Amino acid sequence: MERTLILDSIKKIGEKVLLAGWVATRRDHGKLVFIDLLDRSGIIQIVGGEELSSLRPQDVVEIEGKVQTRPEKMINDKIPTGNVEVASEKVNVLSKAEEMPFDMGMETLNLELPTLLDWRGLTLRHPKVKAIFKVQEAVIDSFREALKKKEFFEFQAPVLIPEIAEGGAEVFKVPYFGHEVFLSQSPQLYKQILVGVYERVFTVNKTLRAEPSVTTRHLTEVTTLDAEFGFIKSWMDIKEMAEYTIKYMLKEVEKKCDDVLKMYGVTIPQVSDTIPMIKLREAQEIIFKRTGRDNRKEPDMQPEDEKEICRWSKEEKGSDLVFISHYPVSKRPFYTYPDPDDPEYTMSFDLIGRGTEWMTGGRRINDYKLLIEMAKKRNTDPEKLGLYLQAFRFGMPPEGGFSFGSERITMHILNLSNIREASLFPRDMERVDIRLSSHDKEK
Amino acid sequence: MERTLILDSIKKIGEKVLLAGWVATRRDHGKLVFIDLLDRSGIIQIVGGEELSSLRPQDVVEIEGKVQTRPEKMINDKIPTGNVEVASEKVNVLSKAEEMPFDMGMETLNLELPTLLDWRGLTLRHPKVKAIFKVQEAVIDSFREALKKKEFFEFQAPVLIPEIAEGGAEVFKVPYFGHEVFLSQSPQLYKQILVGVYERVFTVNKTLRAEPSVTTRHLTEVTTLDAEFGFIKSWMDIKEMAEYTIKYMLKEVEKKCDDVLKMYGVTIPQVSDTIPMIKLREAQEIIFKRTGRDNRKEPDMQPEDEKEICRWSKEEKGSDLVFISHYPVSKRPFYTYPDPDDPEYTMSFDLIGRGTEWMTGGRRINDYKLLIEMAKKRNTDPEKLGLYLQAFRFGMPPEGGFSFGSERITMHILNLSNIREASLFPRDMERVDIRLSSHDKEK
Repeated sequence: MERTLILDSIKKIGEKVLLAGWVATRRDHGKLVFIDLLDRSGIIQIVGGEELSSLRPQDVVEIEGKVQTRPEKMINDKIPTGNVEVASEKVNVLSKAEEMPFDMGMETLNLELPTLLDWRGLTLRHPKVKAIFKVQEAVIDSFREALKKKEFFEFQAPVLIPEIAEGGAEVFKVPYFGHEVFLSQSPQLYKQILVGVYERVFTVNKTLRAEPSVTTRHLTEVTTLDAEFGFIKSWMDIKEMAEYTIKYMLKEVEKKCDDVLKMYGVTIPQVSDTIPMIKLREAQEIIFKRTGRDNRKEPDMQPEDEKEICRWSKEEKGSDLVFISHYPVSKRPFYTYPDPDDPEYTMSFDLIGRGTEWMTGGRRINDYKLLIEMAKKRNTDPEKLGLYLQAFRFGMPPEGGFSFGSERITMHILNLSNIREASLFPRDMERVDIRLSSHDKEK
Repeated sequence: MERTLILDSIKKIGEKVLLAGWVATRRDHGKLVFIDLLDRSGIIQIVGGEELSSLRPQDVVEIEGKVQTRPEKMINDKIPTGNVEVASEKVNVLSKAEEMPFDMGMETLNLELPTLLDWRGLTLRHPKVKAIFKVQEAVIDSFREALKKKEFFEFQAPVLIPEIAEGGAEVFKVPYFGHEVFLSQSPQLYKQILVGVYERVFTVNKTLRAEPSVTTRHLTEVTTLDAEFGFIKSWMDIKEMAEYTIKYMLKEVEKKCDDVLKMYGVTIPQVSDTIPMIKLREAQEIIFKRTGRDNRKEPDMQPEDEKEICRWSKEEKGSDLVFISHYPVSKRPFYTYPDPDDPEYTMSFDLIGRGTEWMTGGRRINDYKLLIEMAKKRNTDPEKLGLYLQAFRFGMPPEGGFSFGSERITMHILNLSNIREASLFPRDMERVDIRLSSHDKEK
């Protein structure tokens, strides 16, 4: 007999089906036994007798039985299969699970983060946990789709990189055949090189950063989404492409992950037709007027300022998202384009939403000589910029781009309290699958 | 004036257009000057006078001019814009290139591999070089598309992994906050864990291997394509899914990259309706009969055997691709499923084409106790299998999957002689963008 996916069984009322999946829960009511069975398509109630009574959560089973409508008062309108159940006739255990180390009730999941992660091979199976990564998949897919529609070329950015100009303490070093190489913190230099080849490029890639602190917002390994394109007429082209992309993504997530958003009781951020953009100095002025907090001389935004500017944007512009532009030259990387009208400030932006950064972007310097000059000013040795500078020696159009982390976007959309929840296998300074403290120190 | 993409100018004969792109070549014929201009859509001939005479290859320019049909005998039917040219009226240099270090003629590219790689920021711009990665993009896109059609979930596999059971010398080690972690050589264990969550999964991910030799087929960093799925009825389900996937991919590459295949003078491998599958022992018997070479007791195929079996497959089965199954247990990883009818051999396969391996796959052990037993037999410490074993303790359906490298497939499709040509930024023991020997030794 051919397997029927659980979701398809609602079209087979009165028919005999073979289902296969995991036992989620078992409830015994005297001689009647109820099972919730899960597969990749959904969840369904199985009703039967003795043949079900020895099953326990996570057992993998095949169940043959007849699809029948549930009695009216037993209908569960929270799930697509809520008006049917399968009367079991035959059970075949494909793989027997051990006794569960904790209760993984289907509705909520009351586990502390360390338990959630220590048992990741198991806890990922909880419907609320696995659903998070449906959102992450939709975030990444829609990013790709949005940019392909604009004729961007997708490339694979390298993880291993040579000695880099902007190293710093937060870069992982890898012994490499008697030399030393590094793990990439960003595909920035590669995507710029490739603007010289394909004009418009993007990449979905791993970036790694030796974050020396354990916060709710940082991981050592993330999947970043990066785009870069040339032949811009104005740097506003970059803001517009970023805006188009994020709006496209939010719309797709809303469409594809409606059920997950409901499960988490959240809605997609509301965005006005045009996402407002204000300069950092303007934002600080607004904050001063609204709160009396005078950060007008600061080179950056404080977390409480980011929250306040989001409130302003929502109230005044009807937008949960807002672009802040013109960060000072000193606060941005050497390749950031200074505004010719205001050369202490850059043609760069952050996208802020729900009180925190979602995305960063801007125009880059495309003039070879100016690039070298700006690198030197920041104590960046041009000798170490390798292939990157080649691309600018041989003709580079005016260009720019943007970047964001798939885990952060997922976390923000679902209002998760910790970024670890938005990574299948989160890595931080204390954990790489297992807790490092419980294992040997470096040899 | 709005920019017109080069390819769109063929629809604008008689109209004035603004083109933007890179100068590919310049040819001076007395007062007449010809330029080939390149953008992301194609290449076009510009004809003009003095205003073009100072341009050189890789200059980034905007050119205003009128689209006109070429004189009959000047038509070039090798390119889509071959029956038109643009009479330049105004030139605006956006970015001036330095003098080229070598000739990058448009038809062929006669550079030695070291030069091709030392100047990667420039040589990637050659039409024949950049086209390789259109094939790689199509390979990856079609892999993704094929599996999404079969309801596979895409996940992001980690790069950093904890101390691993199967370490070996070829794994990169990374100092990590006083501990040591490793770079992933394969997402195998993670994709299996996720079969327990999503049933069907795939990933496009970076894998890293400290290949201690410089060969034409090995890189230290590659982009691999991995799939895994559960609830198989027979291990032939895996062969069929692999077959479906590779056939889908080849068809898509043929459709999307027809121009690149022509450029390289190659055709997509020919595949029969069902790709033939024979056991290793059968293959060795065939080789013995055809050549007299007696490798019937070898646990693996030698390169000349792989070539011979491809010839056999082509001649006898009309297929450029052939599956070889049933490699001995000792030659496959500990989790490979032994054939119950022939327990010294495994339910595993390689897909061989054009004399070399394209893909590898098979069924995995899904029984927790057997898995531990097989691990111990191979001196793999179950303690070090971390989250992996959790997934099997709590119910895992019968499952399997397959894996292959995007660079290898690209290389095989285009018949490239060195895998470095199929990687945008190839890494090997002697090069990570720059040649390592020319730089400092490990500090």
